[in-house]
Formats: sequence, structure tokens, C-alpha cells
Amino acid sequence: MSVKDALREQRIETPSWAYGNSGTRFKVFAQQGVPRTPYEKIDDAAVVHRLTGIAPTVALHIPWDRVDDYGKLASYALDRGVALGAINSNVFQDDDYKLGSVCHPDATVRRKAVGHLLECVDIMDRTGSRDLKLWFADGLNYPGQDNLRARQDRLAEALRETYDRLGSGQRMLLEYKLFEPAFYATDVPDWGTAFAHCLQLGERAQVVIDTGHHAPGTNIEFIVSFLLRADKLGAFDFNSRFYADDDLMAGAADPFQLFRIMHEIVLADALKPAAGIAFMLDQCHNLEPKIPAIIRSVLNVQEATAKALLVDHSALDAAQRAGDVLEANAALMDAYNTDVRPLLRELREDMGLDPDPMAAYRRSGYAEQIVRERVGGEAAGWGA
Amino acid sequence: MSVKDALREQRIETPSWAYGNSGTRFKVFAQQGVPRTPYEKIDDAAVVHRLTGIAPTVALHIPWDRVDDYGKLASYALDRGVALGAINSNVFQDDDYKLGSVCHPDATVRRKAVGHLLECVDIMDRTGSRDLKLWFADGLNYPGQDNLRARQDRLAEALRETYDRLGSGQRMLLEYKLFEPAFYATDVPDWGTAFAHCLQLGERAQVVIDTGHHAPGTNIEFIVSFLLRADKLGAFDFNSRFYADDDLMAGAADPFQLFRIMHEIVLADALKPAAGIAFMLDQCHNLEPKIPAIIRSVLNVQEATAKALLVDHSALDAAQRAGDVLEANAALMDAYNTDVRPLLRELREDMGLDPDPMAAYRRSGYAEQIVRERVGGEAAGWGA
Amino acid sequence: MSVKDALREQRIETPSWAYGNSGTRFKVFAQQGVPRTPYEKIDDAAVVHRLTGIAPTVALHIPWDRVDDYGKLASYALDRGVALGAINSNVFQDDDYKLGSVCHPDATVRRKAVGHLLECVDIMDRTGSRDLKLWFADGLNYPGQDNLRARQDRLAEALRETYDRLGSGQRMLLEYKLFEPAFYATDVPDWGTAFAHCLQLGERAQVVIDTGHHAPGTNIEFIVSFLLRADKLGAFDFNSRFYADDDLMAGAADPFQLFRIMHEIVLADALKPAAGIAFMLDQCHNLEPKIPAIIRSVLNVQEATAKALLVDHSALDAAQRAGDVLEANAALMDAYNTDVRPLLRELREDMGLDPDPMAAYRRSGYAEQIVRERVGGEAAGWGA
Amino acid sequence: MSVKDALREQRIETPSWAYGNSGTRFKVFAQQGVPRTPYEKIDDAAVVHRLTGIAPTVALHIPWDRVDDYGKLASYALDRGVALGAINSNVFQDDDYKLGSVCHPDATVRRKAVGHLLECVDIMDRTGSRDLKLWFADGLNYPGQDNLRARQDRLAEALRETYDRLGSGQRMLLEYKLFEPAFYATDVPDWGTAFAHCLQLGERAQVVIDTGHHAPGTNIEFIVSFLLRADKLGAFDFNSRFYADDDLMAGAADPFQLFRIMHEIVLADALKPAAGIAFMLDQCHNLEPKIPAIIRSVLNVQEATAKALLVDHSALDAAQRAGDVLEANAALMDAYNTDVRPLLRELREDMGLDPDPMAAYRRSGYAEQIVRERVGGEAAGWGA
Repeated sequence: MSVKDALREQRIETPSWAYGNSGTRFKVFAQQGVPRTPYEKIDDAAVVHRLTGIAPTVALHIPWDRVDDYGKLASYALDRGVALGAINSNVFQDDDYKLGSVCHPDATVRRKAVGHLLECVDIMDRTGSRDLKLWFADGLNYPGQDNLRARQDRLAEALRETYDRLGSGQRMLLEYKLFEPAFYATDVPDWGTAFAHCLQLGERAQVVIDTGHHAPGTNIEFIVSFLLRADKLGAFDFNSRFYADDDLMAGAADPFQLFRIMHEIVLADALKPAAGIAFMLDQCHNLEPKIPAIIRSVLNVQEATAKALLVDHSALDAAQRAGDVLEANAALMDAYNTDVRPLLRELREDMGLDPDPMAAYRRSGYAEQIVRERVGGEAAGWGA
Repeated sequence: MSVKDALREQRIETPSWAYGNSGTRFKVFAQQGVPRTPYEKIDDAAVVHRLTGIAPTVALHIPWDRVDDYGKLASYALDRGVALGAINSNVFQDDDYKLGSVCHPDATVRRKAVGHLLECVDIMDRTGSRDLKLWFADGLNYPGQDNLRARQDRLAEALRETYDRLGSGQRMLLEYKLFEPAFYATDVPDWGTAFAHCLQLGERAQVVIDTGHHAPGTNIEFIVSFLLRADKLGAFDFNSRFYADDDLMAGAADPFQLFRIMHEIVLADALKPAAGIAFMLDQCHNLEPKIPAIIRSVLNVQEATAKALLVDHSALDAAQRAGDVLEANAALMDAYNTDVRPLLRELREDMGLDPDPMAAYRRSGYAEQIVRERVGGEAAGWGA
Repeated sequence: MSVKDALREQRIETPSWAYGNSGTRFKVFAQQGVPRTPYEKIDDAAVVHRLTGIAPTVALHIPWDRVDDYGKLASYALDRGVALGAINSNVFQDDDYKLGSVCHPDATVRRKAVGHLLECVDIMDRTGSRDLKLWFADGLNYPGQDNLRARQDRLAEALRETYDRLGSGQRMLLEYKLFEPAFYATDVPDWGTAFAHCLQLGERAQVVIDTGHHAPGTNIEFIVSFLLRADKLGAFDFNSRFYADDDLMAGAADPFQLFRIMHEIVLADALKPAAGIAFMLDQCHNLEPKIPAIIRSVLNVQEATAKALLVDHSALDAAQRAGDVLEANAALMDAYNTDVRPLLRELREDMGLDPDPMAAYRRSGYAEQIVRERVGGEAAGWGA
Repeated sequence: MSVKDALREQRIETPSWAYGNSGTRFKVFAQQGVPRTPYEKIDDAAVVHRLTGIAPTVALHIPWDRVDDYGKLASYALDRGVALGAINSNVFQDDDYKLGSVCHPDATVRRKAVGHLLECVDIMDRTGSRDLKLWFADGLNYPGQDNLRARQDRLAEALRETYDRLGSGQRMLLEYKLFEPAFYATDVPDWGTAFAHCLQLGERAQVVIDTGHHAPGTNIEFIVSFLLRADKLGAFDFNSRFYADDDLMAGAADPFQLFRIMHEIVLADALKPAAGIAFMLDQCHNLEPKIPAIIRSVLNVQEATAKALLVDHSALDAAQRAGDVLEANAALMDAYNTDVRPLLRELREDMGLDPDPMAAYRRSGYAEQIVRERVGGEAAGWGA
């Protein structure tokens, strides 16, 4: 398949919450024109898809995107050219979850948390979503605060009950994170932990790699490659980071790393939708305007992918087999150093899109329009 | 001077904001009974001092602790046995500061920020505070976002104007921080930057070491020792961290590190108030109740100090001079491995205090009283 | 069981190579009196056991400890009161292994490496060792240098062949390491990778945790707890680190961490030899004299264990169940803050040992004796 | 000045030691054909310059490059089209330096170390070198091992004596390093320490930034910018790293970081030789062949520089001043995403060079020639 054909098939899912306000613990700088309802988030996601051509689905976050009629929300999306994607659960913003959700020492709280997970599967039934994405803020701030092992037992039990509730064609995606909001220990800190639970659960449980959730020095593409080999890579949450879980635009902090990750994907022929990997963004645009930041992120992932598709695999292979360290590295770098923007402009024209989505967005007047129209009501934000 | 005498002289300042609510970007779990006014924060700080005997001052944060009459606030504190301490400026929670305060590209915003710093010196005049503590959230999330060097020029200008406004007997303390809330670059990322600006400013400008503001692997006691040698260590913000700026209780994450820091202080004879180092806490008690967490933190610093005072300096010196690595290390570890709690209980009895401040607090009924009484109004929190 | 009884049962294995010279890439500072043969290493290990009472076995490293007659070596050890422990393979110091051993792109090199692993099992048959400990220096310095996934396939194949060769009662212990000597990627970088391979292999394959082999910010006791729960923790390589794989004396860099690790061990009742966890040291004494450094390390592990045994589990449990963060943390810290040295001196007297092994070693004249006697020949070192 | 003109002026210094063997503490994999004498290292450096056109000087390391007649060595170099560059001192590989050199507790050792530094200045007089580059391996492995502050006093004294010995037109360049070979503390761990000493010494003392010597998460371009502003940036040691001081080829691990560094250089107009910044490589080619690895590194720095020169400063400035985060970032990324290889091929043709230095080297037969000719003698390596 040609590079362009592969790129035409690429699918990136944008997260409904990235269209709303976000911030740090120090301050949320609110922006004008951010959506006030799940419907308005879908409007924005549709704009991103219309301009990039490769972002046809939107992930929802429950309860932030709770609506009375999910069927209606799904049709609304379809009418605008996009579809509802993964359902993300949220068991970290209720006062009951102060000491954890599914790992909480108190069975009542665990029950409530599992109830929410099951509700999310109900919603999937109605939205037609394939993926339930689970991230737990569970963890400890202080040594001794709770029993690490008992918490794993509780986690396993909650995951089992939820997994067993999945309908056919539905999957559970388990995310890991080294730290934050818990500081001393998190209950799913690394891919090994997520992997072990997924193995126990069954083949429809798979691991999510959020690129911002690792310790410094972690080789993320190794994890990509390992999970692909084990058939346990379910999805990505793309974003970028310099120090912690900064949730910056994908490709902004270390574009070479993003390329190496996409290289592993291409090597394993896992780019195509049929491979079942969900490529999602999970970002917070604290300073920059949301919609163009998301467009930029989609383009960054696309550029990294295009470069990965340009790697000359037979030259790479030959050099690797010959133990030629410099040539093998050069084969990779040749592709990375290529400017793929002309190719992508061409691709977009082939697809009937504007060759420059950022400029097209600026020209569209949409930014001004939402500032004008979205007045009153409560702007969406983490928790809104 | 005996160990007990040295401990009796020790002074630890508690931060008004640690008595209020705090949290992560994901959620603030509000607690019952937290103060609603600066006066109530002083009530709580007074309790901590009454029980520990070594926390006689409270740092204020402006505008969080803004009142009409600072003289009245100061008398209120004195009536309760404590005094007002450092004034902390806040130029990061106003919408204007989205892209920075004193480093902002727009001169109008810089003017406003400097105005706030000058206002803080006015307040110091009224509270009788010696120290103006400056921390800037200024920085960049993305490469290219602003000109790093121009921002230093702007920073230098703002610091100069503020420094020149200081009255006699007043000091400027400049804090540094590697990351957060800015992710790509902060404008005062490390002690070197703070030190260079303080050198430029003059002898009343000194560096603050916040123990949670370093990159992984940084040897903090080296910085302590270096700044003491250069006469540029002004203060500590104690807290502890596992990964980022976790703001956990001092001594909770790495008690050995806290001991090594206090060892450098003792070696340089810088523990006594006359040495001019302000030993402050800067913490966020997100999960645990505020007042006992602060008591625990004060006790942790005191225990580390007691251990540091027990180091046999002549044995240490002799081993160091002989190049005896194991003996020198053992001389330090002997002190660290000592259980100083009996000594500290004795000290407290000598000082007319309850030997067990944590138990005394529990017995005091204060926790229940504030829950009962502090009803209505707005609970203090970051920003409240 | 009483704390003393538990401590009496404790077993720590010392590594033959730590008695020889070691250094950094910049310089090996040779010491006088270091052993020149495996026999002399055993002499030194016997001294450590005689003085501490809890270090009855010595790990061997092949080919560094290759001898003609392993039966003779084993009897030699028994005559001196110690036994041979784990066999450590070495497939990283032959020129053929420049680009890897079992993961090398060239099948001939892989064959040679597997041959060495099988030879190690042969040696185990003769020494009566239970454990084959595998650490691979395999990895990549540059992106693209080799195919990450193909290397996993080769690794799996080599491990399988070796595992299948194990006799009954023998185990394979697989070690992981984030970096060094490979810089870009290592083939077994983390516990997840080691765990996944061990799961595939079978129940006699287990994971080794080297405390110096993690990224900054990694919570090691979480891994301990997780692997114990999964029945996949085989052994520890204890040492300590500030930045990288520093291989300093256990407990020297972060004694609180060592305590937390031993707390998880005690919680899982895995301290006793019957639990099958091998507690080993893996250290490099670059500056300090070898034997007293090893004694010190054994004592540090013992002190951390004694503290862990003193944790009041019912108080801890109660506080955890009540969600009392401060009390739960305090229950742990109470034990950590206890000075266990008097208890350990008492224990040693009960065991007929000198209460102060460090002083006893100094008085013994052994250090002077080996300097006098070990003249000529080639001093042992990494590779000697 | 045009981009090409600026690039034509660029100067990169290669290090004599990178042409010899190097390795990790685990193993040095010797290569065939590596130089056996300083003369042969110059031969290799001349090849690199002949092919790249921008590497006209070679740094020496004393005592590794000690010769009887430095004048002769200098003429030898000139005959081959290159010149001798910075003199690097080495006070870390003599047994006396086990506990330090200029910071050693014993004055005799310090005297010896200072003697070596003065000898290096003598050599500079003879080679005509401008720069004395100082890196100290001094530090501590264990807390308490020596007195951190006393060591700073000793360091200051040694630097002062050496600085005062400098002839007119000579400079002292002080390097810092966070860790390795010392693990607990190094005596010049960070730029702040080097900067403070340089300030004390005088204007001819400047800081060296080795890109591999920082803690994870450090923003190196911030340091570049800060030191340029303070007129204290003397030189770079370029290399790249994933975890520690990996000393890989510059630009191999994080090409975007190298670009950001060069962007600060270009912004400050500090690329041109008259600005006095020495751009040097400091690398270890453990696996890959030395000469092509150095060529590749020179090209990587050149590519990063070319991209930095392409930044549209007026667009960048305008966006920064307008607070347009996305546009400002885009202005930088536009340059980074450009493929500068065609431009550089063109530049080389303009300069009468082969457009593809790597291919030209392969075709030259030099690699085969040195393997054939350099037989017998002792191959150069760290310490040889």
C-alpha cells in the first residue's frame, strides 16, 4: 500500500474534554467560546474532522458528557460527520473518592465506583461505542496509607465484574500512570501492572499507553513494541510532556519520540483501523486556544506517521542484520529528516480538503463565531 | 551549646495557606472546619505553636490573606502567642497573568505585577515582616512561545524596582522552581538563576530553597552548603515529594534527605535565628487533616534537626581527613539512626509542653470545635 | 514468631564479585588484598558470615569464578561455614557480544550465548545451586540499531531452551534493568518485561528486583508487593543509588526505601527462607574497602528488616481501614524511627556473635592479613 | 548575512579521545584501526575536517595526548589542514585521585593536581591553544564522606592559582556534571556552581555546557540563553543522552533539543567564531566506528544549526509579542520541520566538498587503510 493510501486510512480520535477549559492546580485560565454542552463539543470536534479529514470520532467522558438521550447525541454527531468513540469513566471527582474508587478500603465506595463503570457500559450499548477506557486516580500519598496488595485485590475484583458485563464487540482499555494525583503510589503505575490485569481478564482487555504517564528515561516505543507482540496494545492517549503529565500538544515536546512510536506501529502493520488500535489524543490546552491546538496535534501525529511510513524497511533490515549501527540508525533518520508537509498538503488536496487546515480554520471565522454565540450557560471544563 | 538548647531556639514558620483547602488539578477535596478568614488561619497556627513550642510565626499570602487592617491582624496574632512572618506575593491567579507576570511580554501586565510586589512591601511595613518571598509562576509551555532572554531582562527590571523599595531591615527572598505550572521552561528554574539575580540585586536579596522544586537526582544539601558559603541562603520552604512538587509533609518522603539538609545547617552554625535563615513549611494537605499534618511536619523537621545536632563532628572530621569513607559515613549514620523521640519528649517537658503534641491535639477537642463552629462563609483554599 | 526469631532466620547472600575490584568507566582504583581466586573470595565471604551470622551463602559469577572442580569449591566453602549460592551468567564481556548475546542479530552469537547459559546449569548441577540468575546487557545505543520485536523473539527462544534444561528444584531468575550498558533501549528494561517472559516460561521462572535498576520516581515496594501477589518474585539484588545504577552499599542512599521494601516482605510473610525469595547483595565497592563495606550492607539490610518486623500490623490495619491517613503513616513511621541497634546487638549475643561486627572485623586483623598474604597473582575484578 | 554564509563560518572542534577506544564499566569493545598516537588522532581529525569543511581544530587531553614536542605536534596538524584546540586536563585517572583531585582532603594530592593544571597551561603556551578546559571527577559516593563546603574552598583555591597563571588571550573553561563517576555528590554539579566560581575568578573564566551532564527534565537551552546573557558561556561539549552521560552522537537522542540550543545561539548572534563560543564534541563511540560517527555528529550539529538559521525571527517576534502561543511555536517548528539536507549539499558543493561526507568517507578507503596500517603498538583508549 502506498504511503498516501495508508495515511488516508489513518484515524485519530479527539477527546471531548480537550475542547473545554482546563488548567493546573494553580489556576484555570478560562477561554471564551468553549462549549457548554456535549453537543457543542461535538460541533467543535466536527470542525476538526472537517478540516483534517482523519479525526472522525470523539471520545466521551462520563459524567462530564452525561446526556439524557445518548441515541440523540449519536445522531447529532452523525449529522455533523463524526461518530461517538470511546467512553471514559470518571471515578475521581466525587467526594467519596478521596481515598480511592475501586481500590478504596470501604466496600460501599467500591460498590459505587463499580456501579459507575457498569453505567458506562450501559452508555456504550446506547452510543455503539466499542471501547471502555478506564483510568483510576486511585493511589496513596503517604507510605502506609493503605495496603498495596489489598488494593490490587480490590482492583482485580472491580475489573472482573466490569469485564464480565461487556457486550460482544466491546473492549476494556486499561490505562496506567506513574503519579498524580496520588504522589506516593498509584494503583496502576506502569504498563506491567495494566498488562498483568488484562492478561487475567481475557482477550478483550487491553492496555492504553498515555505518552505522558511514564517515569523520565522510559523508552515508550519499547512498550509499544512489546505490547503489540503480546497482542495487548489497545490504544494510545497521545499528548506530550517535558517533566510530568503536562498534557501538551502531541509532538510538541519530543517529535522524534512520536516518530519512533509510529515507526513501531508501522513495523507491526498496526496503523490500519482493522488492527484495532485506537489512536486518541488526551490533552489539556491551558494557554492556547482549544480547536486550533487540537488541529495542530492531529497534524503532528499525521506528520510523524507519514515519516514512519517513509522508512525504507529493506535498507533498515539489511543494516540491522549486518550489525551496521550507523547505517541502521541512518535509515531511520533519513525518514525522520524528511519534510513531509508537501506530501500531506498533496494528500489533503486529493481528499478534497484545504491543504493547510490551520489556515483554513483561521479563515473559517469559527473561532469568532463561538465566542459570539456561546454566551451564558456554564463553560465546559474539567468537572463541568 | 547543648543539643537541647539548640533545639529550644529552633524556629519554624507555618504557612497560612496550608490551613486551608488544597488539591490537585483533578479535584480539591474540601475539609470541614478549615478557616474562612486570615484570623481563623492565625487561630490554627497558634494551636500548632502552642503544642510544638517552635512555630511562633505564620507566613501570609497576598491576596489570599488580604485584610483591611494589617496592624489589627498582627495584634490578633500576638494576642494568640504568634507573630506574622514572611509576606508571600501572588502574581499567578489573575486572568492577566496567563502568559506571565513580571516576565509577561506586555508592559501593562508587568506594571500590574510589579505594583502587586510593591503593595506586598507596603504590607510588610505594616505587619513588621522582615521577608518578602517571591515565587513566580512565569514560564512557557511551548518552545518558541516567548523569548527566554527578554524575559530575564524583564524579570531583572521588576526585581530591581521591588528591591529598591525595601525598607531597612527588609529582605527579598527569591524562590526557584523547575516546572509547574509552566511545563517547557520556567523563568527561575534553578538555584543558579535565583542566585545570579540575587547577586545582582545586593546583599538583602537571598535565595529560597523549596525542597520540592528540583529535578530528580538533585543533591539539595549541596545547594544548601553552597549558598551558605556564598551567604545567599535566605530561607527554606520545607515539604516532601516523591515525583514532582508534591507538597507532602516535610520528612515524609525521604527523612534521610531532610536530615542531610539539617546537617549542613548545623555544620554552618546556621540553625540559630541570628543566622537569618527562615525555616518555613510550604505544604498542601490534600487528604490528611490540616492542623495535625502541620504539627507532624514541624515535628519531623525537629526530629531531623535533633539528629543533625547529635552528629559527632570531631569523629566525622577525623574520618574525613583520614579519607576513611566508611567511618565518615558511619559517623553521620550513627546520628541518623538514633531515636531522638525520647530526647524531644524530654525537651518538651522542660519547655512546659505536652511531650506528645499529636496526642495532645487529638485530646484538645480543637478539631471537633472548628468543624462545629466554622459553618457558613467560604472556606479558605488556594485562591480563597 | 518473635522479632528476634524472625531475624535469626534471615539469610542474605553475598556476591563473589563484590570482594574483587570494581570501578567506573573512568577508572578502577585497585585495592590491596583483594582475592585472586574464587577460593579467596570464599574466604572473605566466610568472614562476613562469621561476623554477621546471616550471610551463609555466596553467589558465583561465571566465567569470573570458573574453576576446574566445582565439587571441590563447594566443599571448600562448606569447610569454612558457607555454601555456594546462585550462579550468575555473564554474556557481556566477550567481544562477540558487542551487539548483544541472546538477542544478537546473528544466530551464531546467540548459540554461543545460550551455550554459556546451559553451561551455567551444568555448574549448578555440580554446586547444588538452586538459582540461575540471568542478567543481559543486551540492548541498543541508537534508535533503529536493531528490531526491538525480533530481539524479544530471540530472547524468548533462548530463555525457553535454558528453562527446559533446568533440573528439578532449580529455578531461573530473570533480572531487568532500565539502562546501561545499552543507552537507548535494553531488552529487559522493566519488571513488566521480565514478568511477561517468566509467565510464559512457567512457574520456576521468577523475577529479580535489583534496587538500582529503575527509572527515577519508581516505587519499588509497589513492584515487590505486586510480584509477591503474583507469586513471581524470585530474588533481590540489593544495593543503593542516587542517580543511576550506582551499586552503593544497600541502605546507604535511601534507608527509608529499604525499610518500605522489607515492610512489604514482612507483610507477605516472605522473609523466611521457606518463602523462596533469595535476598542477595549486588554491589561495587569502588572507594571503600570491600569486606567491611559488605558487612555494613548486610547490617543495613538487617536493620531495615528489624524495623519492618516492629511495625504494629494491627494498628496499621485499623488506621488503613478507617481511612486515617496520618495514623496509618504514623504506624509505619513509628517502627522506622525506632533505633533497632540495641536489639540487634542483643540478638548477636544470643547467637554467640560479637555484638558489633564492624568493630570485630577491625580487631580481627583480617584486613592486614590479606594485604600481607595476597601478593602476586592477579587481583580479582570485573572480568578477572 | 545569508544562511549559507553563516554556515560556512561555523566551527566545530572534535576531541582527540573520541578517535580512540572507549566503553562502559562493563566492557570496552576494542576496534581495529584506532589511532595509537596523538599524531594518528590528528590524521583522523584531518579526515573529518577534509570531508565536512567545518571541523578545523582538535581538542587534546593531557596526559593522553602528551608528547615530547608540542610544537612539532602543532606543525604536524597544520600540515594536515587542522589546528590544535582546547587543552583538556585529566586529574581523575591516577591512583592518588581516588578521593578527589583539587578537592581532595590531603593537601599533597591537591598540590599534585594543581601542578597538572599548571602543566596544561604550559602546554597551551606551546600549542597556542586559547582554552583550558577543566572537568573534575571530584565528588563523594557517600553522605558524610567529606565536607562539602571545605571542598568548595579547596576548589576555589586551585581554580584561582590556575586562573592567575593564564597568559593573555587564554581562557579557563569550567565544566559541570551532575553525577558520575561520583554518585552522591559532585563538586561542580551544575551550571550555578560553575558560574559562581567563574564570576569570582574573572572575565576569562567561563562555563562549559556538556549536553549530557544534567538531571532529567533540565531545560538546557534556558541555561544557554542565561549564560549568554551573563557573558559567561564559553563552550559546548556536544553529545547526546537518553538516561545518563551516555556520550552518544550529538543529535542522535533528541534532535529537537539540539535545534532549540542552536536557536538560542543564533538568537544571540553567538554562532560566529568572533563570539568566542567553542563548539566542541565530547563523545564516546562504543559500538559504532569512530570516524564516521564523528562525521555524522558534525553533520547533525550542522543540520540543527541550519534549521536554527532558518527561523523567521520577525514572525517569531511578532507572535511572541502578540502572546500568540500557537503561532510563536509554529514559527519555530516551521524551521525545525524543514529538510535542510539539500541546502547543506549545495553549501558543500559551493565549498568544493563532496555533498555527502558519509558516502565520501566510505568511498575513500580510509577505514580499510587504517585497519591495515595501524597494527602493533597500543591502541588509544581512555587512559591510553
